[in-house]
Amino acid sequence: MQSPQMMGYDRAITVFSPQGRLYQVEYAREAVKKGTVSLGVVYQDGVVLAADKNITEELMIPESIEKIYQVDEHVGAATSGLVADGRRIVDRARVMTQSHRLTYDEPMGVDTLTKDICDYQQLHTQIAGTRPFGTALLIAGVDGEPHLFETDPSGSFWEYKATAIGENSDKVKAHFAKHYKEAMNLDQAIDLALKALQKGTEDHFSEKSIELAYITKDRKFVKLKGADLKKQIQKSTGKK
Amino acid sequence: MQSPQMMGYDRAITVFSPQGRLYQVEYAREAVKKGTVSLGVVYQDGVVLAADKNITEELMIPESIEKIYQVDEHVGAATSGLVADGRRIVDRARVMTQSHRLTYDEPMGVDTLTKDICDYQQLHTQIAGTRPFGTALLIAGVDGEPHLFETDPSGSFWEYKATAIGENSDKVKAHFAKHYKEAMNLDQAIDLALKALQKGTEDHFSEKSIELAYITKDRKFVKLKGADLKKQIQKSTGKK
Amino acid sequence: MQSPQMMGYDRAITVFSPQGRLYQVEYAREAVKKGTVSLGVVYQDGVVLAADKNITEELMIPESIEKIYQVDEHVGAATSGLVADGRRIVDRARVMTQSHRLTYDEPMGVDTLTKDICDYQQLHTQIAGTRPFGTALLIAGVDGEPHLFETDPSGSFWEYKATAIGENSDKVKAHFAKHYKEAMNLDQAIDLALKALQKGTEDHFSEKSIELAYITKDRKFVKLKGADLKKQIQKSTGKK
Amino acid sequence: MQSPQMMGYDRAITVFSPQGRLYQVEYAREAVKKGTVSLGVVYQDGVVLAADKNITEELMIPESIEKIYQVDEHVGAATSGLVADGRRIVDRARVMTQSHRLTYDEPMGVDTLTKDICDYQQLHTQIAGTRPFGTALLIAGVDGEPHLFETDPSGSFWEYKATAIGENSDKVKAHFAKHYKEAMNLDQAIDLALKALQKGTEDHFSEKSIELAYITKDRKFVKLKGADLKKQIQKSTGKK
Amino acid sequence: MQSPQMMGYDRAITVFSPQGRLYQVEYAREAVKKGTVSLGVVYQDGVVLAADKNITEELMIPESIEKIYQVDEHVGAATSGLVADGRRIVDRARVMTQSHRLTYDEPMGVDTLTKDICDYQQLHTQIAGTRPFGTALLIAGVDGEPHLFETDPSGSFWEYKATAIGENSDKVKAHFAKHYKEAMNLDQAIDLALKALQKGTEDHFSEKSIELAYITKDRKFVKLKGADLKKQIQKSTGKK
Amino acid sequence: MQSPQMMGYDRAITVFSPQGRLYQVEYAREAVKKGTVSLGVVYQDGVVLAADKNITEELMIPESIEKIYQVDEHVGAATSGLVADGRRIVDRARVMTQSHRLTYDEPMGVDTLTKDICDYQQLHTQIAGTRPFGTALLIAGVDGEPHLFETDPSGSFWEYKATAIGENSDKVKAHFAKHYKEAMNLDQAIDLALKALQKGTEDHFSEKSIELAYITKDRKFVKLKGADLKKQIQKSTGKK
Amino acid sequence: MQSPQMMGYDRAITVFSPQGRLYQVEYAREAVKKGTVSLGVVYQDGVVLAADKNITEELMIPESIEKIYQVDEHVGAATSGLVADGRRIVDRARVMTQSHRLTYDEPMGVDTLTKDICDYQQLHTQIAGTRPFGTALLIAGVDGEPHLFETDPSGSFWEYKATAIGENSDKVKAHFAKHYKEAMNLDQAIDLALKALQKGTEDHFSEKSIELAYITKDRKFVKLKGADLKKQIQKSTGKK
Repeated sequence: MQSPQMMGYDRAITVFSPQGRLYQVEYAREAVKKGTVSLGVVYQDGVVLAADKNITEELMIPESIEKIYQVDEHVGAATSGLVADGRRIVDRARVMTQSHRLTYDEPMGVDTLTKDICDYQQLHTQIAGTRPFGTALLIAGVDGEPHLFETDPSGSFWEYKATAIGENSDKVKAHFAKHYKEAMNLDQAIDLALKALQKGTEDHFSEKSIELAYITKDRKFVKLKGADLKKQIQKSTGKK
Repeated sequence: MQSPQMMGYDRAITVFSPQGRLYQVEYAREAVKKGTVSLGVVYQDGVVLAADKNITEELMIPESIEKIYQVDEHVGAATSGLVADGRRIVDRARVMTQSHRLTYDEPMGVDTLTKDICDYQQLHTQIAGTRPFGTALLIAGVDGEPHLFETDPSGSFWEYKATAIGENSDKVKAHFAKHYKEAMNLDQAIDLALKALQKGTEDHFSEKSIELAYITKDRKFVKLKGADLKKQIQKSTGKK
Repeated sequence: MQSPQMMGYDRAITVFSPQGRLYQVEYAREAVKKGTVSLGVVYQDGVVLAADKNITEELMIPESIEKIYQVDEHVGAATSGLVADGRRIVDRARVMTQSHRLTYDEPMGVDTLTKDICDYQQLHTQIAGTRPFGTALLIAGVDGEPHLFETDPSGSFWEYKATAIGENSDKVKAHFAKHYKEAMNLDQAIDLALKALQKGTEDHFSEKSIELAYITKDRKFVKLKGADLKKQIQKSTGKK
Repeated sequence: MQSPQMMGYDRAITVFSPQGRLYQVEYAREAVKKGTVSLGVVYQDGVVLAADKNITEELMIPESIEKIYQVDEHVGAATSGLVADGRRIVDRARVMTQSHRLTYDEPMGVDTLTKDICDYQQLHTQIAGTRPFGTALLIAGVDGEPHLFETDPSGSFWEYKATAIGENSDKVKAHFAKHYKEAMNLDQAIDLALKALQKGTEDHFSEKSIELAYITKDRKFVKLKGADLKKQIQKSTGKK
Repeated sequence: MQSPQMMGYDRAITVFSPQGRLYQVEYAREAVKKGTVSLGVVYQDGVVLAADKNITEELMIPESIEKIYQVDEHVGAATSGLVADGRRIVDRARVMTQSHRLTYDEPMGVDTLTKDICDYQQLHTQIAGTRPFGTALLIAGVDGEPHLFETDPSGSFWEYKATAIGENSDKVKAHFAKHYKEAMNLDQAIDLALKALQKGTEDHFSEKSIELAYITKDRKFVKLKGADLKKQIQKSTGKK
Repeated sequence: MQSPQMMGYDRAITVFSPQGRLYQVEYAREAVKKGTVSLGVVYQDGVVLAADKNITEELMIPESIEKIYQVDEHVGAATSGLVADGRRIVDRARVMTQSHRLTYDEPMGVDTLTKDICDYQQLHTQIAGTRPFGTALLIAGVDGEPHLFETDPSGSFWEYKATAIGENSDKVKAHFAKHYKEAMNLDQAIDLALKALQKGTEDHFSEKSIELAYITKDRKFVKLKGADLKKQIQKSTGKK
Repeated sequence: MQSPQMMGYDRAITVFSPQGRLYQVEYAREAVKKGTVSLGVVYQDGVVLAADKNITEELMIPESIEKIYQVDEHVGAATSGLVADGRRIVDRARVMTQSHRLTYDEPMGVDTLTKDICDYQQLHTQIAGTRPFGTALLIAGVDGEPHLFETDPSGSFWEYKATAIGENSDKVKAHFAKHYKEAMNLDQAIDLALKALQKGTEDHFSEKSIELAYITKDRKFVKLKGADLKKQIQKSTGKK
């Protein structure tokens, strides 16, 4: 039998292959795998997100590259894959959470938000006139208890205690499998996140080239920056 | 004669082959077959649904993967195939049943609901601009008497006393053919469901990797979880 | 000259071949031929419809497979071909007859209904963005006198005294050609229908795997079920 | 040079070939040629239409196949080609004439009606999203004086004293060329029509397999049926 | 280099070839060239139009074939090419001139009308979803002074003292080049038109197979018919 | 590597080639190059436009071919390329300038008009469903000071002191490069324009086959015609 | 494996390749690389933009080619790539900033503007019916502190202290890497910009062929022209 490339099943939008596969969705996942790694860790009271931004140019302003976004007071998201695709989904997520607050006068549940985002992504795999989104998300939030969801271009999602998306995510997940513990506090979680992130990152590793944020018990999104982040990196990885 | 792949009948949407076949619908059925197994069993007063979630990652939260959904107070559904496609149909089913309650002030009949869902699926096999849904559903409910319907991507449906969809569904159905009895009570039905589910499941089989729900005579959807589910599994399969 | 498959005339929608043929419509007829047989017989005061449902699975509920539908009080329809396509046309027919009653305060003529259904099918052979329906119908009704129409995917229709659609319909029609008589009563018509149906059915033949309905002089649609149907089958075919 | 089939000019809708031809329109004319013959004859005060219905099945009701339609009180039409396509155009013609009566309070001129029908057919040869109609029409009517128009799938029309469309129309027209006379009365015109029709018809020729209608001086459409038609056939052709 | 047919530049609508050509427009011009010839001659006070209708069938009513149309009181048009395409443009021209009279309470200028018709034709060479019109027009009128415009499928136009379109138009134009004189009166212009038309016509040439019309100084469109036309033909060509 | 023709990058609308080129736009430029030459010259107080109309037929009315159009009182435009495309853009320009006068009660700036026309052309290179315009324009006007802009099918524009578009425009531009002087008066500018135009014109060169217009200091568009133009041609080129 | 050109992944809009790449976006980047270089430099209180216009024709008015645009009082933009594409995005940016002033009564943040422009560009890489923009932008502005953003056809953006886009941008960036200093004043920044621009420009380098603008601490956009620009060029590069 010929390869799927030869047969043309992989070039059309919204068409099944004889094996029941949607190649455009699988190729979108390749776009995710080419993005630098992002990860999330649930701890006792909240969730930590960390991401590698892969900054190599001296004159670039590191803060201008964002892979971890605040979505609402109590929710954050980290993306891997096509940057502009990810930004568009995050924008939509922000509208969803604001609209939820206006309608119900209370913050949106993290699981409900994740489901709505994934429905939006699914539509882009079935309706003609658009390609799938080339991005995956980690959606982290605290709505009573901490939650960490992973989404993918097909519109599927899974909840994790700790997971990673993007390039080398398998190495990061392997690290989690060995070292994750249930009842960590924030410091322990940040330490684990940074050590794991190092597994998925090539050479550079500094407060300039990575991002770290967490959502706390009292439902606040906090981004660690500059000297604070630098200190944490030194503590966890010995890097200066 | 050349194979259908060579001739191109299988790549276009909404086009018949010379044999009168719709290949995109047949390929969507392949997507169903790649999904892990789901099953349903009608007993004296109600219906039992069970599904294999195939959870292998340690840090994943099992509850975040849903294959059995409550649709209305008296109706549940189990899916096999593309997860996000299934979720979208279930959402639509929920709107249908709510809208029925609002319009007629009574719960929707299980057969009517099934027909409406299937009409929605049929449209996706005839109208341009979309692919068929890559998912099958078991729709279970009690509206006076218990009902268990199976739908498929073409928009066909069948009512069963006991049936299964997804990978290895033939093994599960073979088990039913031998062991199904008309006048079972809930306990017997759960026992049969779990034993049958085991036939369609590879290695893992625990309260984490399977789901079980039933709809009772008094039209209530109940999901069995945690310790309760674990006890049942031990009872039926000897697994701990 | 090359085969039509080679030339590509048969893959495009709404395009003529050099011979003036519409291949998609002809392929839709193949889908009809793959469906199990349905038949109709006009008798003195009404019409009898019968259909083979080809039920082989033990645990399937035979009633859930419908090939003969009540359309209005005085009209029924039997389909062969893609089940979900047939159901959608029947739904449309029901809306047509109800809407006719509301507008004109009298039941719709069987010929008018047939024409409107066929116009709907014709549109699906000419307008882009949809495939033809893969289904044929027998439309039977009494509006003063009994009528039996056959439709096909092109939107053509013909009125018959007795006819059949689907797999082996030629064998059934051959039986009618030999044994049909003008002035039969209901019993004789049912007897002829069952004997003819047997010609188009493989092995199984029971009250579970076939459907039988008739529309009477007083314009009522009646479906024969269970013990009553079983008795008739025994009487006509000797089967138990 | 390669054949047009090889070059692909004949498969696209609304595209010219290098020779300035529209192949889809020419193929639609082939569909007309495959239809059984219809003809028209103008006499002193009116027009006669006749058509071969090619009925071979014993149990079919001949009246259910219509090739000659009443369009308005003073206008009739005969079609050859795809039956369902012809019916749709006739429906449109009926709406045109009714709408004309409502707007202007007088019957529509036969030439105006013909032109409007042809504009409708022309649109289907130029606009994307539809194929041409696979049907030709003879439009016959009396609006002061008798008229007989022939239309074709391109939207062209011609007025004739006597003409024919469909299979073997050349044989029928050859008969007219020899035997047509200007000042015939109704009886002579019917006689000519039946004798000519026989030239375009294979074996069968009876009151069941043909249709005959005429529009008279006083602008009334009359269809000859049953015994009356049988007598005429016997008189003109000697057939019983 | 391969021929344009091989390269596919000539099959797509609204696409340039590497040489900057629009093949569909050029092919539409071929459709014009296949139409029988039409011509126009400007004389002192008005314009004469003449056209060959190529009628060969005895029983056809010659008047039913129209190639010269009255557009408004003071404007006429002759077409060559696809008959139904030409009729649609003429219809549009009639709406344009009526609408102009209603808006400005004066007849539309012949140049303005020509420009508006050509804009309509140009749109059909640039916008997707339609083919170009396969017709050219001669637009003749008197709005103070006489005008004769020729249009083509691209939407270009040119004003002439005498010109021709369609098959053999080169022969007719060659006759004009030799024999046209500035200060002719109506009789001389008709004589020139008929002699020139004969150059572009095969065998037949009678009052039945040609059309002749003129627009006079006092802005009236006149069509010459029957005996009058026959007399003119005899006078100019010696034919009886 | 294969040629772009082989690879198909040049046939699709709105698609980049691997080299970042838009072939349809480049082919549209070829259509411009096939048009006869048009030129413009800025002088002290205004701008001169001249164009070759390439008239060879004796009976054609030269004035009916327009390549230089008045757009507004103070603006003119000359086109090269597809005539009907150019006319459509000029029509749009006229609406733009009139609408500007109505909205702001002052004439539109020549640069603003040029930009708006170019935005309209750019849209036709990016949006599906249309081909680019096969025309370039010289837009000349006086809005305080004289301006001469050149546009091309991509929607780019440049301001010049003197330039040319169409066939042989390089020869004309070479003439300008040698002979253009800053402080010319109207007579000198017309003289330069005519001498330059002769460089881009084959044989014929008379008041019939060329057009000449200028926009003066007091913002008036003037077209030179008949005897006046003939005298100028004689003076500048020695031709009679 | 075959090249992507062979496989066709690079010709379709909005389709992923098996490697998760969007070729149309990558080809649009090639269009950017073919444009002449543009650059930006952040200094103590503001930002400097400079661009090469590559003017070689004597009679062209240099000011008519714009590569640096004022977007709002406090924001400017420089483009590289397809000129008309760039102009359209700048127009949109102007509407965005004006609309922001009207809605919020304060100038738009430079980062917000950049994000909104990039969202607009991203849409053109995902939705059918359009190609991506073939242009990159440098967006420079002062909103409290100075900002310099670079955007690309995918809709990604990065903030820089100094960067360049278009042909030879790597040489310019290499110059920045060596010579950029944090605390420059305006004069030093202009000097650096001009020296760097020279690295990306072939032969010509004068006040006619380049553009230079800066946005100052007090949020004003200033374009350096004529003699002033000439003096700066002499000072920085020694060119006269």
